[in-house]
Amino acid sequence: MRTIDWVGGAIELIDQTLLPDELVKLRITTVDELVDAIRRLAVRGAPALGVAGAFGVVLADGDRKAIARLRAARPTAANLAWGVDQAAAHLEEGRKAVLARAKRIRDEDIAACVAMGERGADLLEGDRLRVMTICNTGALATVERGTALGVIQTLHERGRLAEVLALETRPLLQGARLTAWELERMGAPYRLVADSAGPYLLAKGGVDAVLIGADRIAANGDTANKIGSYSLALGAERAGVPFIVVAPETTIDAATPSGEHIEVEDRGDDEVVNVRGVRIAPEGARALNPAFDVTPHDLISAIVTDRRVFRP
Amino acid sequence: MRTIDWVGGAIELIDQTLLPDELVKLRITTVDELVDAIRRLAVRGAPALGVAGAFGVVLADGDRKAIARLRAARPTAANLAWGVDQAAAHLEEGRKAVLARAKRIRDEDIAACVAMGERGADLLEGDRLRVMTICNTGALATVERGTALGVIQTLHERGRLAEVLALETRPLLQGARLTAWELERMGAPYRLVADSAGPYLLAKGGVDAVLIGADRIAANGDTANKIGSYSLALGAERAGVPFIVVAPETTIDAATPSGEHIEVEDRGDDEVVNVRGVRIAPEGARALNPAFDVTPHDLISAIVTDRRVFRP
Repeated sequence: MRTIDWVGGAIELIDQTLLPDELVKLRITTVDELVDAIRRLAVRGAPALGVAGAFGVVLADGDRKAIARLRAARPTAANLAWGVDQAAAHLEEGRKAVLARAKRIRDEDIAACVAMGERGADLLEGDRLRVMTICNTGALATVERGTALGVIQTLHERGRLAEVLALETRPLLQGARLTAWELERMGAPYRLVADSAGPYLLAKGGVDAVLIGADRIAANGDTANKIGSYSLALGAERAGVPFIVVAPETTIDAATPSGEHIEVEDRGDDEVVNVRGVRIAPEGARALNPAFDVTPHDLISAIVTDRRVFRP
Repeated sequence: MRTIDWVGGAIELIDQTLLPDELVKLRITTVDELVDAIRRLAVRGAPALGVAGAFGVVLADGDRKAIARLRAARPTAANLAWGVDQAAAHLEEGRKAVLARAKRIRDEDIAACVAMGERGADLLEGDRLRVMTICNTGALATVERGTALGVIQTLHERGRLAEVLALETRPLLQGARLTAWELERMGAPYRLVADSAGPYLLAKGGVDAVLIGADRIAANGDTANKIGSYSLALGAERAGVPFIVVAPETTIDAATPSGEHIEVEDRGDDEVVNVRGVRIAPEGARALNPAFDVTPHDLISAIVTDRRVFRP
């Protein structure tokens, strides 16, 4: 199963807003449809957004304004802008060259996930591992396999996985909806956990590692990822549990010196005051809704990419 | 408005599971009804449980087995057992004496909340305060006014409150449902926040204090409170924000030397995999659901009770 692909002259992608209830593929033929899919998180996950951005440039047919709109659809995601720029660099060579570059990005993403999975699994010691993760960093966040969840899949394939503690990941519940769905499909043992229980469960012991993805890694190693990652990093530090970021090299943004330069989107009230269409707060309630947080590099034990493992 | 009271020979209490949609009072005439109300959190909040326990002993009419069942209905809540024991000590003097003791606990709770509100507001410096809180510690958690939210109400009445950041408090959303409802009623400015965003918002600055209640305070100051409190304590420590526990003296359990001796309930899968009746995870998904966590005393800046302020 590929989350996103180029099929018969259009982008095909799984509509992640409908999971885990329905598995529906969207066929996207214009940049505006793609921007809409990105904004409402029908497609999400940093690497998948890179591939979406690259294929989106093919759909733009040389329209520079459309390309700029696409590039800005999710400001925190380094890979989206990167994918757009990579494909757009071939615009003068014509559509065929742009499409070829976009396909190469897709194929490189698949290979990178395999490499990250192996490198991450090699890094961890022990053979009955209990790991904690947040958000969705699996096949649905990439093209195939995933980043942090790709490492977990590799551990499972090697028979070294005891259990995954998957944070539900409010407000949009990517953990409860998407990661749980992927873990069910791979037959891996897991339990869901409310986000606020993560640090306490780390303190109680028995968790061997926290594995997360990344939306943007600054030059000094500060890492923007789903809201709640920072809180797990604090819990992991206090408990002495390794806190490991798994992301392709393309997520590292050398132009951003540190976390304070990373723009964090506020996604508005609705996602907080409603859960899957059900109101949870009184009429009139407002919300603060930062979609990401930034974990300072001193709280990160290791960053695993498709090319290396390093300590920031 | 009183959350719980003794009216015409029965306990009357607000059914908190129906808020913020409906304000319904339950009339409770047997211990089994009360145990059920406590278990499904129709009544909750440590001080309110103390009052419920005391009035419940009146309903038990001397039945020691019923009293034991009531005392064990929520093991983490120190006040429930305390309230039961206080009233039960008068059993041999007859029903009138038990009822009198229970009413005195109710009245003392009201007075204690007034005292905590003033002491807590006096402790904080500044006059445009932005405070963060979790769960519900207001009138709904006591008889009137509340503990941590009582301090916030006092700040508001004194014109010193700029904004409350109220954590939604998964899984049962006591923040989004109950605290937001109380803040609306008192006309205080507030915004809701997903639980996992709390530590990050503390790191970003602009929050003057974290105020929480307590379900049980061990002799060394370790504090059991709603799951997510520990995560806020970690965030507050790193950000240099005061982390303040507000609870009546009766929450201090001298018989429990430290946090590791506090039993934490796991409330089962349902609350995590469903939100207000809507399924959020795939069929088959299981959950770990600790209802409380324990914040070690070294992370607590001050404990405010009805009698004193101390640093554990």
